[in-house]
Amino acid sequence: MIPRPLPRVLLLAALAFLAPAAVGTAAAQGAANARRPAWVLVIHGGAGAIRREDMSPEMEAEYRARLSASLTAGSDVLKGGGKALDAVEAAINVLEDSPLFNAGKGAVFTHNGQNELDASIMDGSTKNAGAVAGVHHVKNPISLARLVMEKSPHVLLAREGAEEFALEQGMALEPASYFFTESRWRSLMRVREREAAQSQGAEPEKGDRTSSAALPPALGTVGAVALDQGGHLAAGTSTGGMTDKSWGRIGDSPIIGAGTFADDASCAVSGTGHGEFYMRNVVAYDICARVRYLHEPLEDAARKVVMEELVQQHADGGVIALDPAGNTAWPFNTAGMFRGKVAADSGPEIKIYAEGSDGDR
Amino acid sequence: MIPRPLPRVLLLAALAFLAPAAVGTAAAQGAANARRPAWVLVIHGGAGAIRREDMSPEMEAEYRARLSASLTAGSDVLKGGGKALDAVEAAINVLEDSPLFNAGKGAVFTHNGQNELDASIMDGSTKNAGAVAGVHHVKNPISLARLVMEKSPHVLLAREGAEEFALEQGMALEPASYFFTESRWRSLMRVREREAAQSQGAEPEKGDRTSSAALPPALGTVGAVALDQGGHLAAGTSTGGMTDKSWGRIGDSPIIGAGTFADDASCAVSGTGHGEFYMRNVVAYDICARVRYLHEPLEDAARKVVMEELVQQHADGGVIALDPAGNTAWPFNTAGMFRGKVAADSGPEIKIYAEGSDGDR
Repeated sequence: MIPRPLPRVLLLAALAFLAPAAVGTAAAQGAANARRPAWVLVIHGGAGAIRREDMSPEMEAEYRARLSASLTAGSDVLKGGGKALDAVEAAINVLEDSPLFNAGKGAVFTHNGQNELDASIMDGSTKNAGAVAGVHHVKNPISLARLVMEKSPHVLLAREGAEEFALEQGMALEPASYFFTESRWRSLMRVREREAAQSQGAEPEKGDRTSSAALPPALGTVGAVALDQGGHLAAGTSTGGMTDKSWGRIGDSPIIGAGTFADDASCAVSGTGHGEFYMRNVVAYDICARVRYLHEPLEDAARKVVMEELVQQHADGGVIALDPAGNTAWPFNTAGMFRGKVAADSGPEIKIYAEGSDGDR
Repeated sequence: MIPRPLPRVLLLAALAFLAPAAVGTAAAQGAANARRPAWVLVIHGGAGAIRREDMSPEMEAEYRARLSASLTAGSDVLKGGGKALDAVEAAINVLEDSPLFNAGKGAVFTHNGQNELDASIMDGSTKNAGAVAGVHHVKNPISLARLVMEKSPHVLLAREGAEEFALEQGMALEPASYFFTESRWRSLMRVREREAAQSQGAEPEKGDRTSSAALPPALGTVGAVALDQGGHLAAGTSTGGMTDKSWGRIGDSPIIGAGTFADDASCAVSGTGHGEFYMRNVVAYDICARVRYLHEPLEDAARKVVMEELVQQHADGGVIALDPAGNTAWPFNTAGMFRGKVAADSGPEIKIYAEGSDGDR
């Protein structure tokens, strides 16, 4: 553990003297600590232009069922006294194995018609982390990220090298055909047709991105954050990146601090959205830095970063966040975010559309 | 600009009430602001086991001459009213073009006998950023990182994809032979021999890492931070990675927040050291977060992260840091760090060994 420097004590004392409102919050936090749930799990399946009118009841039921299965897999670990890290991996594996989300099986196609998968995981108790970027043949990139964390001296491995490491660890690789899904392939074809039309000077199709029955191209990154009975946090994120991406682009999902961060001393975060802005704003760590340095309640910290800073930069996305007291937050600045949570004393709860909308039935 | 939330004001008021020492510091900062130098440039050429007894006078003179040339290239830009971003790129280009540092021309070899170069650059005025990882044929990776920032919608491009982008931008690629340097090749051979000996059960050679006339394998990442006459900050970092690295390992240098960060609202940082720890601790952004949220003087923030947090984790390295008032810091927890600074009103100053040692003549 890192010893807390004196100034932090001073700041707290100063706050207690001058800011009764903040003291109220601190007291509320204390009360929250007193009734901290034994364990908590929060998951997401991507944020974006998810509107009820674009979603058939059957499709929505499929998403809900898979999110529910993910919560069950993760909470089974936590109920049994297992580690937050294991719960995060188990919950994400369920989402990676589904064609519904842009991760693992359901990964989108790059410009060259390949699937390039990224993932990262972080253990809040040790601040150890592992990540992989641009792998083509790994069924569960989050599990490979965990092997990188536990079995290599490194944090981030990329592309063929990461697959070489996977083989050395005895992980079976999948043929590229495993990742083929008709709907993702059609997404790539649509984007290519649009590009071709635009390069021939045609007007972009009106409402092309929002009125399509298909979900927007970048949607569907998955992630999980967990608090275990030992009081430890973990976070993980897994993605198939952007449809039609080229030049070996790496987004925020495999970047510790940008798409994923966990530290028992502050919080655990997994993000989903316009990755470049998550990288430039170091979004996941910034939320935890606000908690750590400003002692902002988790919900305020997450809201400020997602609903103020990212919005000011016109950056779409959302996060899930969890602190050691079991407080949770899941702000998003898009129409919807696939998300779910369950705790020892509440849930499971699954939502898709904005809070307060009548979309969630 | 991001509006400052109320708690920040409260914290300052609270500090003013309870911590006269901190107020003194704030006043001193104000005075420093009043006499802010018109421009400032700080560079580094890597931190590590750099000891005077291991360094011949000729070798030391070569290092000093090249660091001096780098300061001249960057300060020429700043004197003429040029941008911090241009100064950072110019200063790093000079170091990349030298075989002395582990970046560009002098990059170390991977396990497979290749050179894999990483770099990143960030503009503090826009918080835009660009980075490349694992390129094999790019003479000046920092300049490619800048093209990624300015000419692509992405932040981080990797490997062949990044080189494809370079070609599309009209950048000439170099053959692998350009990066061949006898001393780096010998380093790889030494590491391989050691590995072979160890795998046959031999004792590791005593003092192998420190008594060798050659510099340690990971040493020599280069970086620069600059403040221009317009008051804008920029930061950049370029590296050849780790000798004998495998599995497509990516370190902290191309990771925004870990090895590089710049924001006019807080500070600019470039790091050099054990990259995995820089990634897990989000070192570059953490220093700026301390400045931004705790209002720590830059020197305190940089010192706490490098001399306390990294040291507690047994992680070697250093950083260079610069704030909008022109304050600078260059803490390192190793025997030495190649470093230099120059400002409109002072310098140039070049140092290699620890402060207070009689090593720097």
